[in-house]
Amino acid sequence: MIKVEHIGIAIKNIEEVNALYTKIFNQKPYKQEHVDSESVDTTFFQVGQTKIEFLASENPESTIGKYVKKNGSGIHHIAFEVDDIQSEINRLEAEGFNMIYNPARIGADNKLVTFIHPKGTDGILIELCQETHDFK
Amino acid sequence: MIKVEHIGIAIKNIEEVNALYTKIFNQKPYKQEHVDSESVDTTFFQVGQTKIEFLASENPESTIGKYVKKNGSGIHHIAFEVDDIQSEINRLEAEGFNMIYNPARIGADNKLVTFIHPKGTDGILIELCQETHDFK
Repeated sequence: MIKVEHIGIAIKNIEEVNALYTKIFNQKPYKQEHVDSESVDTTFFQVGQTKIEFLASENPESTIGKYVKKNGSGIHHIAFEVDDIQSEINRLEAEGFNMIYNPARIGADNKLVTFIHPKGTDGILIELCQETHDFK
Repeated sequence: MIKVEHIGIAIKNIEEVNALYTKIFNQKPYKQEHVDSESVDTTFFQVGQTKIEFLASENPESTIGKYVKKNGSGIHHIAFEVDDIQSEINRLEAEGFNMIYNPARIGADNKLVTFIHPKGTDGILIELCQETHDFK
């Protein structure tokens, strides 16, 4: 694995978090996006190699909406960049892990993404992602 | 802020997590440590710029023990490396944030560390740390 590509943080209110974390990071978010398919609003900060991605949802039945209803705001997942996501999927399945998507799907930023099923990771949600420069 | 120095993950059992994450990261932990003062066992993996630090405690009254009893395993905190922790503490206090330690304390790896009070961060536990090469 190459780096922590992003850390996904589930939150209640995107405007409140933008104001707070603009102060904490001493920089403005470099991107804000609404993702219709996931019913989420997102805002992104960059620190070193890693994006800090905040996710809020007005839909209580969405993945993020359910998480926040149950836990409040919290650090939701860690995404690791890999060179070749299909070979990582194959390697992890051979090690006994279940993958949420196989093959990987196109996700945010046109990346290929999958997740390791949290039953195999002691409950921690681990995303794998691969840049897809070649396909743009 | 320079980089995500580490991500702290609270877990139940260090041996189980070592076995799982050695497979997930396809590498062995580079360090394991028992920290008496915090009643925790730790194990560390490195991915890019960032350490993934797993913390387990047999003491249910410790910070990590309480967290795991309440939430199960989970991503507990994010630590950002800064150049000058005291100037960051001063800047954040001037912005209205409360810091857990001011001045910063010596923590793991002989770093200077503090935390932003989670009441000011929408409940997310944010650590700041500074390398102390000069003091070693």
